[in-house]
Amino acid sequence: MPTSRRVVLAARPDGIPQSQHFRIEAADTPALKPGEILVRNQFLSVEPAMRGWVSAVANYAQPVGIGEVMRSFASGEVVASEHPGFAPGDRVTGLFGWQELAAVPASAVQRKVTETDLPLSTSLGIMGINGLTAYFGLLDVGLPKPGDTVVVSTAAGAVGSAVGQIAKLMGCRTVGIAGGAAKVRQCLEDFGFDAAIDYKATNDIVGAIAEACPNGVDVYFDNTSGAISDVVMRHLAVKARVVVCGTASVPSWDPWPTGPRPERHLLVKRARMESFVIFDYAHRFGEALPRLAAWVRAGRLRYAEDVLEGIEAAPDAIASLYRGENRGKRLIRLHP
Amino acid sequence: MPTSRRVVLAARPDGIPQSQHFRIEAADTPALKPGEILVRNQFLSVEPAMRGWVSAVANYAQPVGIGEVMRSFASGEVVASEHPGFAPGDRVTGLFGWQELAAVPASAVQRKVTETDLPLSTSLGIMGINGLTAYFGLLDVGLPKPGDTVVVSTAAGAVGSAVGQIAKLMGCRTVGIAGGAAKVRQCLEDFGFDAAIDYKATNDIVGAIAEACPNGVDVYFDNTSGAISDVVMRHLAVKARVVVCGTASVPSWDPWPTGPRPERHLLVKRARMESFVIFDYAHRFGEALPRLAAWVRAGRLRYAEDVLEGIEAAPDAIASLYRGENRGKRLIRLHP
Repeated sequence: MPTSRRVVLAARPDGIPQSQHFRIEAADTPALKPGEILVRNQFLSVEPAMRGWVSAVANYAQPVGIGEVMRSFASGEVVASEHPGFAPGDRVTGLFGWQELAAVPASAVQRKVTETDLPLSTSLGIMGINGLTAYFGLLDVGLPKPGDTVVVSTAAGAVGSAVGQIAKLMGCRTVGIAGGAAKVRQCLEDFGFDAAIDYKATNDIVGAIAEACPNGVDVYFDNTSGAISDVVMRHLAVKARVVVCGTASVPSWDPWPTGPRPERHLLVKRARMESFVIFDYAHRFGEALPRLAAWVRAGRLRYAEDVLEGIEAAPDAIASLYRGENRGKRLIRLHP
Repeated sequence: MPTSRRVVLAARPDGIPQSQHFRIEAADTPALKPGEILVRNQFLSVEPAMRGWVSAVANYAQPVGIGEVMRSFASGEVVASEHPGFAPGDRVTGLFGWQELAAVPASAVQRKVTETDLPLSTSLGIMGINGLTAYFGLLDVGLPKPGDTVVVSTAAGAVGSAVGQIAKLMGCRTVGIAGGAAKVRQCLEDFGFDAAIDYKATNDIVGAIAEACPNGVDVYFDNTSGAISDVVMRHLAVKARVVVCGTASVPSWDPWPTGPRPERHLLVKRARMESFVIFDYAHRFGEALPRLAAWVRAGRLRYAEDVLEGIEAAPDAIASLYRGENRGKRLIRLHP
């Protein structure tokens, strides 16, 4: 008798995966092989990057196969273990997939979640991939200095809001770009941005960025690409660093979209565009997590969560993220 | 009675400056103010970057004014001095402009040329701005490692040929891209590239680059932008570094040209595009020049010169460079 449900990739999307590209299946409790653990997931993660994980276009990982469980981060509790390092009751986070029960090798575990004073859900957001992406992307790639002007796109999002707050902690002036009055309010009131621009409301984004960044943009943490980035690129300061973190505004890379060539901006401003993949920093997560936890506990690093209820919410969750419907880190809470 | 001739900017070009944008004037020997020196130029330099120096579009320096002597590097001999650091007979190189006699403050001198065993002309090429651009652009921005594949556009040019040879000295595999059979032959026979691609002759540049770079491109030293770069970007290796040095293939930035967006290449390959301005490295020229000189003396760093005769050749010299008519570092030899 099936004891678990899981979300599998039903068809390969062209662009952003929609609900029809997924299918919910019933499954039996999987049998554990030596070295594996059985995790009862409590939270499934939903991230913009998951679009790439189902794309046939070149990416940093093999795409999820048709009929395979959708790859995702998840957090839950170990309920059975055939690995000496894990015992029932351990709280763990890792690549457990969009499923209620996951039988995974220990290598799928990103870490045991030992901050028992913080909600388990944070292990998927501010204390997980989003916080770590903000931390290493901003600090290691963006190289912010006190007094720098740091501009962030999708500034109310899970990564963007952390970037803005960490940049403030580093002594920078922060400017957020977000879509809609509610997100702009979040940027200013919850995440402490010095200025926030509603790109949907303004009819002069060029003027708005120029006004918010009178000395130019020293660090641009770019989660969108597209028209917003094209404007920010015109306002780079000398020696600016553009951190290419995501391309949320680009619906499809087939056909490959065009835009203003960046070379002259880079030349004139001796500037840099650089990207990174957070998994390359795995060996340094232990350096970031205590700092992130301390900031969260001190109330200096705030986060918003947007929690959907039940695995039934999964198939539309990525598409809805790209429609901008979330308010903070999107999670799916399971009810086992 | 006029004793000198000089080339002034007669009109502001839209794009690449042509001969009609310059005017040759006669001038008297200038009177020296305290702190100035009088230099009799022997060689005037012609560089792709000079297009930017007369452009009204944002640049890293103020544009040359209408009626002003064309800014340029030049090398010559001090014939009179009102500065205690210089004496008649000193060989000097610096921003002396397109003129036979230059009265300039000492700050215009880039350096005294003390390598008396090397031709004075090298102070404008391999021992000057071109060699220094190749040296710092490749080593400081491109960060080549032994075994890396380094691709260079305008590979037979003054900068590109030096980049290729320095990359070889660093243990890299080098692939040059150049236009025409003669330049490809130069790349292979004179500058030791491991492979060279004639972008004008091939009808499959994608295949040619893929074949020449089976493990991808670790460093792309880009002097062109445009269609060639768009192809190279598709072949970046993980952690690739794109050194944006010039945009020779872009005839005008007004209107701003578009091209395939680079963000996804950068993301998928955790790659970087970065630019630099050689003047920012002025404090480190003293570290590079002895190494460059040693390589030149040892025959490990070869250079080609393309010498035009007489100041009359100056007005068309930049346009002709962009037409690809030069074979090596373009200079104008004066005959005082």
